Amino acid sequence: MEKPLSGRFRVLDSIRRGGPISRVEIADACGLSRSAVTGVVQSLQHEGWITEVQELAHGNGNGEDPARHDPGRGRPRVNLDMNPNAAHVLGVKLSLHRMSVAVTDFRGDVLHTTTLPFNGSQHPDIAADMIEVGVRRCLIEAKIDKNRVLGLCVAIPGYINNLEGLCYWSPIFDRDDVAFGPLLSERFPFPASIENDANVVTLAEHWFGEGRNLSSFAVVTVEHGIGMGLVTHDRLYRGHNGIGPEFGHAKIEFSGRPCRCGQLGCVEAYAADYAILRQVLPHFSLDSYSQDPKAYHVEIERITAEAKAGDQALTAEFAKAGRILGRAIGNLIATLNPPKVIVTGEGLRAGEMLFAPLVKEARKLQLAGNRFETEIVAHLWGDDVWARGAAALVLQQAYMDPPALIRDSAPDSAELPSQALA
Amino acid sequence: MEKPLSGRFRVLDSIRRGGPISRVEIADACGLSRSAVTGVVQSLQHEGWITEVQELAHGNGNGEDPARHDPGRGRPRVNLDMNPNAAHVLGVKLSLHRMSVAVTDFRGDVLHTTTLPFNGSQHPDIAADMIEVGVRRCLIEAKIDKNRVLGLCVAIPGYINNLEGLCYWSPIFDRDDVAFGPLLSERFPFPASIENDANVVTLAEHWFGEGRNLSSFAVVTVEHGIGMGLVTHDRLYRGHNGIGPEFGHAKIEFSGRPCRCGQLGCVEAYAADYAILRQVLPHFSLDSYSQDPKAYHVEIERITAEAKAGDQALTAEFAKAGRILGRAIGNLIATLNPPKVIVTGEGLRAGEMLFAPLVKEARKLQLAGNRFETEIVAHLWGDDVWARGAAALVLQQAYMDPPALIRDSAPDSAELPSQALA
Repeated sequence: MEKPLSGRFRVLDSIRRGGPISRVEIADACGLSRSAVTGVVQSLQHEGWITEVQELAHGNGNGEDPARHDPGRGRPRVNLDMNPNAAHVLGVKLSLHRMSVAVTDFRGDVLHTTTLPFNGSQHPDIAADMIEVGVRRCLIEAKIDKNRVLGLCVAIPGYINNLEGLCYWSPIFDRDDVAFGPLLSERFPFPASIENDANVVTLAEHWFGEGRNLSSFAVVTVEHGIGMGLVTHDRLYRGHNGIGPEFGHAKIEFSGRPCRCGQLGCVEAYAADYAILRQVLPHFSLDSYSQDPKAYHVEIERITAEAKAGDQALTAEFAKAGRILGRAIGNLIATLNPPKVIVTGEGLRAGEMLFAPLVKEARKLQLAGNRFETEIVAHLWGDDVWARGAAALVLQQAYMDPPALIRDSAPDSAELPSQALA
Repeated sequence: MEKPLSGRFRVLDSIRRGGPISRVEIADACGLSRSAVTGVVQSLQHEGWITEVQELAHGNGNGEDPARHDPGRGRPRVNLDMNPNAAHVLGVKLSLHRMSVAVTDFRGDVLHTTTLPFNGSQHPDIAADMIEVGVRRCLIEAKIDKNRVLGLCVAIPGYINNLEGLCYWSPIFDRDDVAFGPLLSERFPFPASIENDANVVTLAEHWFGEGRNLSSFAVVTVEHGIGMGLVTHDRLYRGHNGIGPEFGHAKIEFSGRPCRCGQLGCVEAYAADYAILRQVLPHFSLDSYSQDPKAYHVEIERITAEAKAGDQALTAEFAKAGRILGRAIGNLIATLNPPKVIVTGEGLRAGEMLFAPLVKEARKLQLAGNRFETEIVAHLWGDDVWARGAAALVLQQAYMDPPALIRDSAPDSAELPSQALA
């Protein structure tokens, strides 16, 4: 059996989502008994991760009805909330043309982001150098001591084994089988890990976004390629050997357009940035695929702007991409019937001219007998949120088990949180 | 958050899977601390669900190396094992032409099965009558007192909401929206529930079969239609509102063959029993779909036998069905990348003439870069195993929380299991 989500994780995550929140509400939210919650809360307070806040009966600060919680008229109610400054974590998102670094507090709120140019097909040592530069700059700009950082996670497109820090393949590197996690760990005084970028944006949706209140949902990412992430039973689903879904290579037409993977008819061969681009600009054919990755980015942005300005031929290309993606999402719904599918990624810059045909096609494919329609939503957000998702992955680990930082310096007796961590 | 798998479930399931097993091994298997395991074990022993067994150092009965566990040479080691006779549960599988009833012990081992004819498109009251007859007969034949039965689960093809006992649609009934769970509960002195049949066979694979040691895997069922079940994070995945995957209606060709659902190109329109039949025998067309469901069963068995006997045209039909199903499974692997896909159901009576082309096609679609091949296995087993899966669903609930049977009659002090439950 997998290691379960620990009581520590459940309590911290409930406080992060609902705080300030009472012990009783925590027990309800996280499915644990009240006595179990009391024990966990006690040690979290002792270690300085959470703190008690007293509120008067006139409201709990959430705009909720205070009468629901308050046992006695006018008596102050004692809630629990995160101590956001208890520690910090770092998240990095690498794409073919850019690097984003985010530093967050213990609640996952972004304190600062730094964006730097980046080039794909990089030597791993150079990629690590650049991450080191980006991280150092971000911490300096945010005035955060590196010794207060619990860890770093780097989000990378490609085949990633998060557990062992292995990158089997990525357009980011000039080679296969890079032990990038261990390579990064040598450079920082805190643990460093890597994760597939679609997985971290899925975690970001679960922690902060459209999947915030759901135990299961799917995320489809439209970028240079097409990716997917999945949450089931409140947890990120990772496939065989940590290599998650490769939804971009689900087939829509079995003798269809050639995909960059070498096969025919994959959904990304119709709907990803590179696929739209090669339909419109012949010099972006698969044969010339190794050209400057930044050119793709510049050109797809230009084409999208021209389509939005009224170019009918271009609009039709985006609509077709949307319809094909709608078919793939229709099949995804048939396969998983999730309550929600969240479509995100830079490809959504095309807006309704891609998304409206997508939803229409997916709805057309829905089974008549199934009257519980899967919600399909578009969620366009920037690279900093992917970095925030990577940071959340570090926090997830720190919520599961006490991080070393604190384990080594745990106070002998209960002190104020700010003292406990000074 | 979903209610977590309880410590009680984790400990009981580890003992069921590995017993006789030591406390230390249980802690390793179920991801709990040793102290947590000790507490749970104590109350399970007290309630009579598990029992201590002493073993000599020369082996633990599992054929494993005893030195790994045994702390002192020749000293008897104390293990824990299920008390299988602590209680019984019932599972029923309904198909268009047959009903199977299984009664199992507390470990899920089948003690007896009863099979009766059944007709689809039935009035719910009549279906309930027939289930009552089948259950009564099974208990009499097995000589089991109905007061020792913890519960009953009925597996039904169609749209089922297990939580509320609602059947939105099923070929089993002559109408939609049947509150069949509550209807059954009135007839028995124990709780009765319903579940989608693909979900229960998936649970059977997880508890007893090809998915026994996996935290995630997918099951594809080939019967009159095509279904799917999914385990992630050690639990059955249920989709939106409890309505799980409708994989049979994932599209393979978007303007392809008409499906009985009214759409075009669904995988089951090529690979399900009914689809093969209508290709071969024109009077099984979609237009004549309401004919006697038993005729499908009789004829598909006959055709399969003729194909196996060497009829080339028929063999080609089965091969085509296998290829199309292989494409759908290729897309399923792209979408989920599970460690294993288990293909099961009566459609596997066709054996290698269906399964070999299936595997070949699915392999052809596998991404070159992904070197962790999803295992694809065929697992042909009978209706009694579906019924056993339904029984396992009742046991799952009984493992999660103490069942009422015991809660009402818990002994005040530790007694022998047989006495505790007398």
